[in-house]
Amino acid sequence: MSAPNRATLWGRTVVDELVASGIEDVCLAPGSRSTPLTVAFSTHDSITVHSHLDERSAAFYALGRAKRTGEPTPLVCTSGTAAANFHPAVIEASQSRVPMLLLTADRPAELRDSGANQTIDQTKLYGEAVRSYRELPEPAPEGRRLRSLRTTVCRALAESTGTPAGPVHINAPFAKPLEPTETDDVPADFPRRRPTAVEGREGPFVSVTPGRPAIAPRDRRTLVEAIDGADRGLIVAGPSDSLDGGAIRRLARAAGFPLLADPLSGARFGTAGTDGATVIGGYDSWLASVEWPDPDLVVRFGASPTSKTLRNYLRDGEARQIVVDPAGEWREATFTATDLVVADGTDLASALAADLDSPEPGTWRERFAEAETRYWKAIAEETGELFEGAVLERVFSGAPDPATVFVSNSMPIRDTDRFARPRDAELTVLGNRGASGIDGITSSALGAGSATDDPLVLVTGDLAYYHDTNGLLALSRCGVDATIVLINNDGGGIFHMLPIEAFDPPFTDQFETPHGLDFAPTGELYGFEFVRTDSLSGFEAAYDASLSSSGTQVIEVRTDGEASHRRREAIHERVGERLG
Amino acid sequence: MSAPNRATLWGRTVVDELVASGIEDVCLAPGSRSTPLTVAFSTHDSITVHSHLDERSAAFYALGRAKRTGEPTPLVCTSGTAAANFHPAVIEASQSRVPMLLLTADRPAELRDSGANQTIDQTKLYGEAVRSYRELPEPAPEGRRLRSLRTTVCRALAESTGTPAGPVHINAPFAKPLEPTETDDVPADFPRRRPTAVEGREGPFVSVTPGRPAIAPRDRRTLVEAIDGADRGLIVAGPSDSLDGGAIRRLARAAGFPLLADPLSGARFGTAGTDGATVIGGYDSWLASVEWPDPDLVVRFGASPTSKTLRNYLRDGEARQIVVDPAGEWREATFTATDLVVADGTDLASALAADLDSPEPGTWRERFAEAETRYWKAIAEETGELFEGAVLERVFSGAPDPATVFVSNSMPIRDTDRFARPRDAELTVLGNRGASGIDGITSSALGAGSATDDPLVLVTGDLAYYHDTNGLLALSRCGVDATIVLINNDGGGIFHMLPIEAFDPPFTDQFETPHGLDFAPTGELYGFEFVRTDSLSGFEAAYDASLSSSGTQVIEVRTDGEASHRRREAIHERVGERLG
Repeated sequence: MSAPNRATLWGRTVVDELVASGIEDVCLAPGSRSTPLTVAFSTHDSITVHSHLDERSAAFYALGRAKRTGEPTPLVCTSGTAAANFHPAVIEASQSRVPMLLLTADRPAELRDSGANQTIDQTKLYGEAVRSYRELPEPAPEGRRLRSLRTTVCRALAESTGTPAGPVHINAPFAKPLEPTETDDVPADFPRRRPTAVEGREGPFVSVTPGRPAIAPRDRRTLVEAIDGADRGLIVAGPSDSLDGGAIRRLARAAGFPLLADPLSGARFGTAGTDGATVIGGYDSWLASVEWPDPDLVVRFGASPTSKTLRNYLRDGEARQIVVDPAGEWREATFTATDLVVADGTDLASALAADLDSPEPGTWRERFAEAETRYWKAIAEETGELFEGAVLERVFSGAPDPATVFVSNSMPIRDTDRFARPRDAELTVLGNRGASGIDGITSSALGAGSATDDPLVLVTGDLAYYHDTNGLLALSRCGVDATIVLINNDGGGIFHMLPIEAFDPPFTDQFETPHGLDFAPTGELYGFEFVRTDSLSGFEAAYDASLSSSGTQVIEVRTDGEASHRRREAIHERVGERLG
Repeated sequence: MSAPNRATLWGRTVVDELVASGIEDVCLAPGSRSTPLTVAFSTHDSITVHSHLDERSAAFYALGRAKRTGEPTPLVCTSGTAAANFHPAVIEASQSRVPMLLLTADRPAELRDSGANQTIDQTKLYGEAVRSYRELPEPAPEGRRLRSLRTTVCRALAESTGTPAGPVHINAPFAKPLEPTETDDVPADFPRRRPTAVEGREGPFVSVTPGRPAIAPRDRRTLVEAIDGADRGLIVAGPSDSLDGGAIRRLARAAGFPLLADPLSGARFGTAGTDGATVIGGYDSWLASVEWPDPDLVVRFGASPTSKTLRNYLRDGEARQIVVDPAGEWREATFTATDLVVADGTDLASALAADLDSPEPGTWRERFAEAETRYWKAIAEETGELFEGAVLERVFSGAPDPATVFVSNSMPIRDTDRFARPRDAELTVLGNRGASGIDGITSSALGAGSATDDPLVLVTGDLAYYHDTNGLLALSRCGVDATIVLINNDGGGIFHMLPIEAFDPPFTDQFETPHGLDFAPTGELYGFEFVRTDSLSGFEAAYDASLSSSGTQVIEVRTDGEASHRRREAIHERVGERLG
């Protein structure tokens, strides 16, 4: 690879390795110090650039893409606070185990701690939130350095998609000239050949074959015996961006266990393996009210479930609880789990399913199935009028097949858990449930939407919408279309769920924090249609219209946060009584 | 101090100590885990709450307040990514030595690394960017813990305003109940008396008397001799939020040296000590062209100057260069300084001024004075038509006395350096020159404006305006009025200054990055008057009208970034020729 100068050589080599490893997209934010990377990415024929002006939004956008695809979209920024703006998304990526590759440009080492402009200490800027931190060697036309550079890029990609997946930070110091100005820095014949170990080799400089943890056959037999021997077993699928929902459903059928499927688990929606599986979605409402025996065995996949009802049920049940986690982490904060199995969840579920004999449904499973049927019948009756839960019910029952549905934290994900009925449809449901922030929701959703041709639906609240209005620029700038359902209850409706509600002041001013913002001008600012409704039929009409049209529509549903909370509580009580 | 439960006791104690130490304001962002702090702050009679919904903007707002006052405004947020959103402003505070007190709520220790919701690793979240990191003990009605808590708060405040000032991070884990629910956790008679060392003592629990570095009398005499012995001395005042401009000007007069005053130094504007001082503001344009002897002694205060011309002049002059820095850091990235003097700049300047005898101006000083006069005469002739520099000229010549003027990074600060003439007026000119980011500019300005009754002027570019549109919420939410001058050249005009301009593509798409945004809807969204002009007279009229009216006006001046750059270059050349 020839280059007019050292910095350009470094930039081109990084991009060359990424492209050879299959990378096709990059998120760029403008800046000077990152010029060698920006020029190399943006002039490469195989790379699609997603250009962002706010690095915080850029990083969440890349996160969303990676959630949808399982592959990182490299992020490039200049030196200084630009890199710190990535931090919130880096933490979310770490916690939700989503690949991310951070390429932060830096000043050369001699300018650190010298008072030079826009020079901060970027070393390990994201602390423990990255899988690895590496600093690139200073650009120089030297064989070992160049091999080291190529190897570092390949390693970084492998680490970010390893077990657990997550963010990897490469800090890249560059000295001037940063642009592709001709110098005599790089000999014209350097390197004389592409510095690969084997001449003629194609693809990445270093090929990494990822290993995934699997348990020994003897240990799997022990598990099979435990499942076979259980009278009242449960499969619980918590949030995960990488679990194969079909494999989990097949395991549930093969084990004869009901499957309690978090909306973010990949197991509540989908067409594969549904036949004969008892997929349960209504547990959050009725599980606390049932008066039947406790489970004796629970097999858990994914992270801790969104539903507090479910978490408490598992905590209080005194069942043997097996947590399957490929990274060997105990994502179980009640500390009642009894077993940790370190294994890839999809692989293990498939292997166990093959060893089990799909028993006929017994009383235990029938109870869950019957409660589930009665629950959704009740919900259909209870969601005839506008409140926040009814909106979520309509969003999911009316979502096209296939679709990507991104759900904000705070109330939308809780209402999804309670009001989104399991469906035989290819709905990829995503949320930022790693750290559960309300920052970067719009950008994450638009990133996810940009990754496939599936229609994109985002359900967000007004605080999350405000927090990431900058993210809306990606609609035009990155060419993403979306149906955005904005549930506006003018503040933090979730706080009505908490005991602080009884202490007013300061409840209204400091917790609910009404802002009184009229969001309609965001449509003018970022160029999309803004529709407002305060009725359920109005919402349904606008939602259907948006789904069958192109471009982006934001459908704002004005709700009363407190009234919605009371209605949820009332439904919860009535449904509990009917099923109890 | 009585309290209904442990968490409340902790929250009240923290606030009690802060109030006793003189804190009167706090920036709060809504969240649940921070409830004990939020309730204690917001129900305290002596505290004014500045409520924010985006933690990134909140932190920059607190930064701006501290830049203006020299005292920290504590920042409170909930657990999770909320805390990471503070990170960009924390870095800016660290680099520009501005006090900041971060109070991040956290989950109790047992929930870390357990997969619990909204629980991340907040330990040392800001790495090396804070002066100290402390974790509060778990709340408990226990004497030593309570004394430790009070001491930690006092220490943290002292550290944040120490030498160098900067951010301090207190991580505060809380277990439920978080709200002031009655429990029997805290005995009614606890503590039987306020746990002070001396009964009846008032004020903070621990009183900290800050020490400031000063050099020994003998070393000062050596400095005086060096100054006395210099034929061609210069004082250079770089960016600083804490230097007393009057003291620096008095030193310049007493030494008989010209004073090259960065617009962010505190020494270019102001009324104290101007009599007989030769304050130079035009150096950025003409210093490279002058053909007179090099200086033989330079005494530098503050950070590295904004002007590249000046930095290069100092680098190439072979003078003895004395850097005065209270923190003992070498903020001099050309590595040509010869002496570091570790001393408080204001104190040292005052002491040196008292030891020097204010010589009559000689040829050296007269050359600077004459060049300065001719420079501003030329600038008056050159700024009769609209371009970006002319806007900055008008902003500063027309700013009311007193006023706070906040200037964005990128082009506005460079144009301020070149086109803002020194004035005998109390203009407090501020910028985020620590890390020189374009993030958080609006919030920093509004925070600074909130701290006094002085009128506030913000000059910003379109990228910085876009980056922190969320910060505009503080106008209504925190009751700040401002005159915001938005120089909109549709992208990063600064990149025209760089060699990358010659490489298009990718120059336009990836560096200049035009966005085509029409910002008028931001006025509707956040409730202020939005005025647009594309003439200099239109700008002057709108600027005067805004300064003489209440409320907030955003005055958008549409400019051509490339044309403005060419015009700057042409002026630079003509002025150089006239003065050379």
